Amino acid sequence: MTIGIGLLGLGTVGAGVAAILSAPAGRHPLVDQLRLQRVAVRDLSRPRPVELDPALLTTDPEAVVHDPAVDIVVEVMGGLEPARSLILSAIAAGKSVVTANKAVIARHGQEIAAAAAARGVYVLIEAAVGGGIPIIEPLKQSLGANRIQRVSGIINGTTNYILTRMADEGALYGTVLADAQALGYAEADPAADVEGGDAADKIAILAGLAYGGGVERSAIPTEGISGLQARDVSYADQLGFRVKLLAVAQSEGTDPDGTEQLDVRVHPTLVPKDHPLAGVNGVNNAILVEGDPVGRVMFYGPGAGAGPTASAVVADILNIAGIRQVGGPSAGLDPLLAAGSWRRCRLVDPAVTRHRNYLRLQTTDQAGVIGRIGSCFGQEEVSIQSIVQFQASGGEAEIVVITHEVQEARFRAALTAIAALPDVKAVAACLRTL
Amino acid sequence: MTIGIGLLGLGTVGAGVAAILSAPAGRHPLVDQLRLQRVAVRDLSRPRPVELDPALLTTDPEAVVHDPAVDIVVEVMGGLEPARSLILSAIAAGKSVVTANKAVIARHGQEIAAAAAARGVYVLIEAAVGGGIPIIEPLKQSLGANRIQRVSGIINGTTNYILTRMADEGALYGTVLADAQALGYAEADPAADVEGGDAADKIAILAGLAYGGGVERSAIPTEGISGLQARDVSYADQLGFRVKLLAVAQSEGTDPDGTEQLDVRVHPTLVPKDHPLAGVNGVNNAILVEGDPVGRVMFYGPGAGAGPTASAVVADILNIAGIRQVGGPSAGLDPLLAAGSWRRCRLVDPAVTRHRNYLRLQTTDQAGVIGRIGSCFGQEEVSIQSIVQFQASGGEAEIVVITHEVQEARFRAALTAIAALPDVKAVAACLRTL
Repeated sequence: MTIGIGLLGLGTVGAGVAAILSAPAGRHPLVDQLRLQRVAVRDLSRPRPVELDPALLTTDPEAVVHDPAVDIVVEVMGGLEPARSLILSAIAAGKSVVTANKAVIARHGQEIAAAAAARGVYVLIEAAVGGGIPIIEPLKQSLGANRIQRVSGIINGTTNYILTRMADEGALYGTVLADAQALGYAEADPAADVEGGDAADKIAILAGLAYGGGVERSAIPTEGISGLQARDVSYADQLGFRVKLLAVAQSEGTDPDGTEQLDVRVHPTLVPKDHPLAGVNGVNNAILVEGDPVGRVMFYGPGAGAGPTASAVVADILNIAGIRQVGGPSAGLDPLLAAGSWRRCRLVDPAVTRHRNYLRLQTTDQAGVIGRIGSCFGQEEVSIQSIVQFQASGGEAEIVVITHEVQEARFRAALTAIAALPDVKAVAACLRTL
Repeated sequence: MTIGIGLLGLGTVGAGVAAILSAPAGRHPLVDQLRLQRVAVRDLSRPRPVELDPALLTTDPEAVVHDPAVDIVVEVMGGLEPARSLILSAIAAGKSVVTANKAVIARHGQEIAAAAAARGVYVLIEAAVGGGIPIIEPLKQSLGANRIQRVSGIINGTTNYILTRMADEGALYGTVLADAQALGYAEADPAADVEGGDAADKIAILAGLAYGGGVERSAIPTEGISGLQARDVSYADQLGFRVKLLAVAQSEGTDPDGTEQLDVRVHPTLVPKDHPLAGVNGVNNAILVEGDPVGRVMFYGPGAGAGPTASAVVADILNIAGIRQVGGPSAGLDPLLAAGSWRRCRLVDPAVTRHRNYLRLQTTDQAGVIGRIGSCFGQEEVSIQSIVQFQASGGEAEIVVITHEVQEARFRAALTAIAALPDVKAVAACLRTL
């Protein structure tokens, strides 16, 4: 049985997919049953890293979607539109879709999933999170017996590359960003990566799968690394931590009506050096899933790149091809692979969530400062793990506080009181701590 | 749609499975469609960690297999027989099987797979390797686009616990083994773990899935950790390595007739401290898969225990339950989930494989010894990375050599010449190095 593949986009990932399909030897034999039938590109004349029959190319993506020889539509063009419309168009045409487009899925995932369920087709998204790392399929197909307590991860390679070099070299954020741009690890406009938006897209997707219901992407508290100072990376190191941009989705209990309460967020975080995520360096990604009864499992690997991402795209194609052999194109959907919503989820008020914190204060270098800061925390019942004076010169000092796990609202109240102390010149940094 | 589950065995894993099935809230909704219909136990009167309707229990496992209310048979009794016969009996009755039994699958996997394929049922084995870590499903369903170059892993928790404590505390093998036995991490008869047999079972299974064909379990070169000395763990540490019991399956090319050549082996190995497997400690497991184009992905988590293993067993049950919704019990098999063989594989002659080596020699403490050892290696064109004299007292010295990657036959020839040198009193240790 031959299965026709239509490709929307022939950039690095699309070319990677085409390369796999054109050289099936040594791969799973099902790869040999996939046939690239039509490829939509923006510019027919542009040179390609992969050789394709020119007759396959078209500049009309709808022609790919509606080609009767195309059974599965692969969307690797990126961007919100026309990607979203083309995905919906393929679903309407009764075709399963494979996409690497995290932005579309994070924003329009529920609309797309509803359309796919109604039409009885799959929309698979392994490549949207973690590049080549199998994480979407395992969440859907290997961890369903669990009550998921937390999904946390390093899911943006650009920021992890920058943070790794800042930690290893004591380098400044701006310097490393410029290097990353020169090396192609960061975009010319790096905002989506360094401000945390890309990681927020991905954790929204992971949360939806882990907890069985969508969360509002735009309401996810998101903090990037563009304001991170080399000094805090260095202090963290001295205190036994690595600074990582973590994306976290954590269960906070269940409402009386069964709605799952989730604390979902993205922020730079101090990770203890003996934690499995602390050793994830460079452009690698890792996702830690904690559940009952599995405990802690982690998935690690290359978070981006043509080859790894194409591996994930073709895995999704194979899953659709494989399941077609069970019951033909008009059969029922496998509920694990289709991964529809099965409960309502909502984001909790960040003020009531509990976290550990790292705080750096610039203060006067006077006796009693640490005591006064400690009193402010004490009045809000914020328990302190350590308080360390790091530098003192010219009448100024730097004080770093690490708290125990405390309610966010109480921490913020204490911080307001601290900022108002005459000794405190500035709240220079405030980061989360695992 | 309700799906009847029959359980063969109600030990720790069986009880863990029963506990999940009896409390579906908060898990994937498909769990709520599973009904425990019959449970085979050895002794009806023994107290259980999980409360079950006594009417479910029987001492006759065939009664479970042939109960018409049982759709899926879950074998968690362990041991070769009657487990193998019961699995075959369930297949003959047209029932899919889930098993955690690595010993049966490593030895009789091809017989069982052939029977399952002929009868059109699944035999799923996620729990057989890596406890709760999703590794079987990802190999089958997420990495099929790849040409797998190597699968390597720490897949025995008992030995990893022992090695971790030997490294962290400088403790002796025998001391830690006794502790591990007292803590329940090692069996009273620890041979299957410490001699590497359990890891060999598991790498045989992983190789079969990664390369699409079975290898002869009994022919896998297997070396355990029972002869490992604390001194070598300490020297390895000083040279920048952790000693781990690695199981490896590596592609060595393809015969003209398409047969895949594999180097499969289990042995204590020096792992560079910056390698992802070096940080896997205690009873945790991790499996690293290297493929083209995915690169390196790693799967990490608890390698044993009732909860993690039950999580994997129920994942398999859910996969069978999910796919039954596609086409009903008489539909075709999903070739990815069924994971039949698709090419012949054979083990290569170990003498022609290439590895790095760690060698510890007891020698006389005389000028020129290192030179004479170096000459022996040179004559066999064995390239040396480092040669270090560690101790010298009473006219004796200890010399540790780490080679570059060399052909095994040449290394062994050099070793024979070295052992015959008058200066060399003993070849005290010989380990592989990553």
